[in-house]
Amino acid sequence: MSTEPTDPTQAFLDRWADIAALERASAVLGWDQETCMPPAGQASRGRTLSALAGLHHEKLTDPSLAELVEQAGAVAERGSAAHAQVREAQRCIRRATAVPGELARRVAETQSRSLASWQQARRDDDFSVFAPDLTEMVSLTREVADALVAAGVAARPYDALLDDYEPGMTEQDVAPVLASLRDRLSPLVQAVADSGVVVDEGVAHGTFPGPAQEAFAREVAVALGYDFAAGRLDESAHPFSTGFGPGDVRITWRWLDDDFRSGLFGVMHETGHALYEQGLPAAWDGTPIGGAVSLGVHESQSRLFENLVGRSRGFWEWALPRFHEAFPASGDVSPDALWPALHTTRPSLVRVEADEATYNLHIVARFEIERRLFAGDVDVHELPELWDATYDELLGVHAPTPADGVLQDIHWSMGAFGYFPTYTLGNLLSAQLFAAAERDLGQLEPQFARGEFGPLLGWLRTHVHEHASRYPAPELIERATGAPLAADDWLAYITRTVADVYGVTV
Amino acid sequence: MSTEPTDPTQAFLDRWADIAALERASAVLGWDQETCMPPAGQASRGRTLSALAGLHHEKLTDPSLAELVEQAGAVAERGSAAHAQVREAQRCIRRATAVPGELARRVAETQSRSLASWQQARRDDDFSVFAPDLTEMVSLTREVADALVAAGVAARPYDALLDDYEPGMTEQDVAPVLASLRDRLSPLVQAVADSGVVVDEGVAHGTFPGPAQEAFAREVAVALGYDFAAGRLDESAHPFSTGFGPGDVRITWRWLDDDFRSGLFGVMHETGHALYEQGLPAAWDGTPIGGAVSLGVHESQSRLFENLVGRSRGFWEWALPRFHEAFPASGDVSPDALWPALHTTRPSLVRVEADEATYNLHIVARFEIERRLFAGDVDVHELPELWDATYDELLGVHAPTPADGVLQDIHWSMGAFGYFPTYTLGNLLSAQLFAAAERDLGQLEPQFARGEFGPLLGWLRTHVHEHASRYPAPELIERATGAPLAADDWLAYITRTVADVYGVTV
Repeated sequence: MSTEPTDPTQAFLDRWADIAALERASAVLGWDQETCMPPAGQASRGRTLSALAGLHHEKLTDPSLAELVEQAGAVAERGSAAHAQVREAQRCIRRATAVPGELARRVAETQSRSLASWQQARRDDDFSVFAPDLTEMVSLTREVADALVAAGVAARPYDALLDDYEPGMTEQDVAPVLASLRDRLSPLVQAVADSGVVVDEGVAHGTFPGPAQEAFAREVAVALGYDFAAGRLDESAHPFSTGFGPGDVRITWRWLDDDFRSGLFGVMHETGHALYEQGLPAAWDGTPIGGAVSLGVHESQSRLFENLVGRSRGFWEWALPRFHEAFPASGDVSPDALWPALHTTRPSLVRVEADEATYNLHIVARFEIERRLFAGDVDVHELPELWDATYDELLGVHAPTPADGVLQDIHWSMGAFGYFPTYTLGNLLSAQLFAAAERDLGQLEPQFARGEFGPLLGWLRTHVHEHASRYPAPELIERATGAPLAADDWLAYITRTVADVYGVTV
Repeated sequence: MSTEPTDPTQAFLDRWADIAALERASAVLGWDQETCMPPAGQASRGRTLSALAGLHHEKLTDPSLAELVEQAGAVAERGSAAHAQVREAQRCIRRATAVPGELARRVAETQSRSLASWQQARRDDDFSVFAPDLTEMVSLTREVADALVAAGVAARPYDALLDDYEPGMTEQDVAPVLASLRDRLSPLVQAVADSGVVVDEGVAHGTFPGPAQEAFAREVAVALGYDFAAGRLDESAHPFSTGFGPGDVRITWRWLDDDFRSGLFGVMHETGHALYEQGLPAAWDGTPIGGAVSLGVHESQSRLFENLVGRSRGFWEWALPRFHEAFPASGDVSPDALWPALHTTRPSLVRVEADEATYNLHIVARFEIERRLFAGDVDVHELPELWDATYDELLGVHAPTPADGVLQDIHWSMGAFGYFPTYTLGNLLSAQLFAAAERDLGQLEPQFARGEFGPLLGWLRTHVHEHASRYPAPELIERATGAPLAADDWLAYITRTVADVYGVTV
């Protein structure tokens, strides 16, 4: 037999390779399912993914692995990468071990049933079709959260859920940030509505053939730094990005023929995600700290490239000549004329179609509702009413049907409570990182105007990507920006933007 | 915890699901690697596949699995499907357990090295670059074969190798069949060369745009019965088919712009493979007997559709109007005028470019050489000379360089000795099955001429596909055709064909 490595960190990392391989295989099968798999492959693919998940759980909870990790922990120097490997491994192991197999099995079963009844409820536009399974899902998720608290993963149930997506963040960290957003954004959005200003979006409309949109989007992605030798672009029903190590990070997109914004900003968003994954250090590939550190940090990269780069005047000074070349039928338009059409703001019902300014109010609404759900202040059957009241209050809109209201998101049907806040954390962090990068690099828009996106990407590589999960997200954010996560930079950005487009300030 | 099933067969099949999932995941990753994966993903993909292979070995050799299988075997009724499940499971377990882990690791390491030096040797056109690694590969493969013999997998080392690809077949079964081919084919090919007849292949040449070739090939595949809702067609450097259960069976192709035969017959070949996999019973998906029974039977399906259907006059009576529609620039041609260009015969150097008649002589050559290698009659450094002498004798051709001679195939570099005969077994069986189908269904070519491919496919479903690995291949062949595998039907077919095209008989 091959000799066991004597370095205890290497010994557990060797064992971790199996866990990484199972995760990676599932990720490739997931990508394939969304982009390539023929419809008749569905049932068998489901069984395969479920078996891989079981094997992953088995390997992660193997007591001999925990022992190897502990041995490595005993000798790892505080602050070293080895120490971080042990920390992350123990976090994963602790989460996996805390949830009894029987509970995990019931969650998985309820997820499939709940997903189906959510889909049915949307088709029927009837929340009551979904309510029983959602009640069960909430109850099981609470059991999971309690088990995680009992295992010391987090101090309180909602924190235990949040920790799955945003390790190290607690409700107590998130709540004041979201409250400050709520306080500032609601009046801002109201002021825009009251301003009576209507932005002419005609410059964004026209006929944009799919192949030309794809060619243009590819040109933009390459300019931003996306490496097609380590990636690819495909069509899918819902755009996403997925990475199988820094050498293989794929993005997908869809587009509208009559409005270029949907396809282009979708690609720029996914490119932001993908640049993060392509920038992860190859040396840590397949190790506990080798992946992205949190969903919030991931979303900060996508939002930064989509919004702070992609909707900037500087970017369009560089992009417009290329845009006119790609779409000769589009009229000649200046960055200043285009700019307002990239920053329209109006209260809307559906989160995934929301604009920059209102988007975070959709998240605030969900955060407030799911907090109350997990605090036991509200029952599932009260959700539709609570949803409508919250939207009335925050956005001043009222969904005519539950399909556009409380039933619009898939997350709760999967038991993904604690997930929504990461979207807003990402938005806020994108502006905080952008501001920090400008402190180091000077104003970025003039650089974009010259097609120079390299300095920004280089800065993100050095301050975010290269660290993968070496530091917990809160520490990474402080190291990169000099401060804890806060709403200030983003609020300054959105206030400036809205003032510019709508002439209103709050 | 979930309760254990009380049916002992179900108990071991539940455990087998993990093994099937690991195989399937590797297969999807393999397909992705050939069709989608960006180049920079190579290294990480290699590590993932290697880890999955390790997990597969671990699961397959877990003593508790063997115990479950034994318990199932104790109660399975002889002749039942459960009995076949036990037989197949034990075969897989015995093969996996027989080879010590350390030996398997050395084989895997030597494979990578040997593959690299084979590629280098081809570039340098120098066998001596490859010889040391090939020597090591032969020696390790012999160790593996000895271990398999010691474990009772087969009686003799070469049989143990053959058994991996063609379970139940032995050198003693194969040798007389290949000898009869050799005796009949060599003079036939010589007679063709002496005839002086030159077939006009101009009808197959022209300009065939890729998209039109693809549309035509898809139309043909659908007509033969390939279900695109359970499959897809992609481009790849080397055409192949791969199945992830009957609901997801994919084919790939490539084409030449100036000769339609390469692309079309490639797709028909892979369609034959894919029809087999799409016809496997869904109920056995992911169980030991759920897959194709042997490489030879697999190849019989591809060759049947490629050659006995695709090169028949009947097929072209149906296909030619569609062909002319797909390629309006092609001149009007009759099935009789096209037919000789689909059956040209000439001795050639390279197996993968060989025609129907000469192809099996390439296999006979390899079979004779590798038998002598494993009998210890010949050393690796003597291979180039032996290769040239064998080709001189069988085909009357002499490779100007080793790259077109002894270095042309990848198989030996991977240690895949015993693989080549399955190609010929498939060729022979295709004709034997075709003849048996005609005994039941009447003459098939008139049916093809009317576009009726369903009866043939239905017959193959009933007699081959639906049985998956329920019966060992030799038994399946006897059940389907009423006789053991023999060369007679194929020899009758090729003799008739050659006589028709070249006017020669032997």
